[in-house]
Amino acid sequence: MNIEDTYKEDFLVYLNETIKIKEPKNLYEPIHYILQIGGKRLRPILTLMTCDILNGNVKNAFDAAFAVEVFHNFTLIHDDIMDSAPIRRGKETVHIKWNVNTGILSGDAMMILAYQCFENYEPFIYKKLLKLFNQTALEVCEGQQLDVDFEVRKDVTIAEYVKMITYKTSVLVAAAMKMGAIIAEVSDEEADKIYDFGLNLGIAFQLQDDYLDTFGDAATFGKQIGGDILENKKTFLYLKAIEVCNIEDKNLLLNLYKSKDVDDSKVEKVTNIFVENKISERTINEIENYTNKAFETLETLLISEEKKEILRNFGSSLMKRSL
Amino acid sequence: MNIEDTYKEDFLVYLNETIKIKEPKNLYEPIHYILQIGGKRLRPILTLMTCDILNGNVKNAFDAAFAVEVFHNFTLIHDDIMDSAPIRRGKETVHIKWNVNTGILSGDAMMILAYQCFENYEPFIYKKLLKLFNQTALEVCEGQQLDVDFEVRKDVTIAEYVKMITYKTSVLVAAAMKMGAIIAEVSDEEADKIYDFGLNLGIAFQLQDDYLDTFGDAATFGKQIGGDILENKKTFLYLKAIEVCNIEDKNLLLNLYKSKDVDDSKVEKVTNIFVENKISERTINEIENYTNKAFETLETLLISEEKKEILRNFGSSLMKRSL
Repeated sequence: MNIEDTYKEDFLVYLNETIKIKEPKNLYEPIHYILQIGGKRLRPILTLMTCDILNGNVKNAFDAAFAVEVFHNFTLIHDDIMDSAPIRRGKETVHIKWNVNTGILSGDAMMILAYQCFENYEPFIYKKLLKLFNQTALEVCEGQQLDVDFEVRKDVTIAEYVKMITYKTSVLVAAAMKMGAIIAEVSDEEADKIYDFGLNLGIAFQLQDDYLDTFGDAATFGKQIGGDILENKKTFLYLKAIEVCNIEDKNLLLNLYKSKDVDDSKVEKVTNIFVENKISERTINEIENYTNKAFETLETLLISEEKKEILRNFGSSLMKRSL
Repeated sequence: MNIEDTYKEDFLVYLNETIKIKEPKNLYEPIHYILQIGGKRLRPILTLMTCDILNGNVKNAFDAAFAVEVFHNFTLIHDDIMDSAPIRRGKETVHIKWNVNTGILSGDAMMILAYQCFENYEPFIYKKLLKLFNQTALEVCEGQQLDVDFEVRKDVTIAEYVKMITYKTSVLVAAAMKMGAIIAEVSDEEADKIYDFGLNLGIAFQLQDDYLDTFGDAATFGKQIGGDILENKKTFLYLKAIEVCNIEDKNLLLNLYKSKDVDDSKVEKVTNIFVENKISERTINEIENYTNKAFETLETLLISEEKKEILRNFGSSLMKRSL
């Protein structure tokens, strides 16, 4: 068993001991449901791992790890309502299994429960954790709003797109790690480095998600190849193509993204434009830039080579998904 | 100008200095809107007044007062979505002026902003305030859920109803006051008394709202008399009638509450049943019980008679709305 799996197993034991269905049942059952239906548990694993690597007492990191997971799952409930998504992790979403009002209210309660998870920390650590949590949570909301705004905007730049994915997903990964660092009581400087490592790795991971959606291996990706293209999603690939390709290809692309047809030839046509404009290579290049930035920060951490190796391996395993 | 109005004026100055529309605009404009369209500002006034009366530095209470107001307004946005309410304070609700998704996301951001308001407090006070805030916020969600559940339940007891209104509204009034006490750094015992005062006064105020909806003076109540009856709302009056009246009146009442017609004769018929069963007197009696409980607690506070008089006057003015 690798080290992530150990943390995950420990976290799931903690989670199952901690979540109880209380009254009113209609409020707490959906919370129990979403926390139980699985997920990679990436964020809590990162909190535990970071605290451990930085010589903190990992037992003290479970509450914060749980808070991050509860918050993440709250965002899934509300995002699924906003996206009218019927399925999450192969199961019905909360607003489908119950209804939209239940989704809204259970989500609200989950956000408060996330805040409540921190109450065992001493006031000084408590406030440090909460300031980070507040800022991160607000950025996640801003990222979601940018994502919504970008759907109707025609002039989204690559820089804006990277900001959106950073806020929507990477900041929570970075904060999950920094919380582990805060609990391990390292210096603010070290904690900030950990944050930067998580942030850049998170951005690389999201860009890789864009890449794999078009250029991934259907057998291992887990989602339909070309899904983003069929949904006219303005991913990094699309925005890069708009930026670099000639006027002919650009118009072709703009036209293809006007259609709402679910047509396999569309995926092929768009993919061809991407290939001809070397979008695959350009995206891999950008992913490597962010991954390298993360690893460069990692090198500056004041920890043993052995500890660095653990973080490096974890980062590499995340970025190895058939890229 | 009475003392409440002074606090209100000061609070509004603080509010206008504090709220700024940031990017992304679609996230922050609805927040600005709901905070600007008015309201009694009862909760922040109570935080300021309590801190002041308990000899705290009232300047330190503005952040907490604002947090409570921001949280309260967040609940209004989400509750209005759940109730499909088109109008709030005479203006369009957020989900009507924008859309449901904007209402959900701006509400989420507001809850986080409420938490962020506390960041200027020292860690020890900060943690005390936040523990109270967490518990209160969660109870408000539970109260809203109970309210939703009661709409379809046929066996709601008076005790359950009082619990629902307590959670849905009174706990936030009580917490608003207790925060003022915490900032004034009084003993936990004194702070708990302040909480009890606010809680019981809040319950009395809510029961009075039920009373006035049927027996109030149309000229001063501000809402349509009989609105609760037309909506088949299971208020204290209705539940008390079901509890005490004979089988004939009970069946009559149950039948009247099955109809969805907007029929003025329905209001008259239900009001007659209430009158014949002395529901008006019984409700006034209950309101007085809670008001008296609040005032009894007030007497035990370790403050000057002059300070007690301020709280007593404020409580009386709240309960004087033509009862």
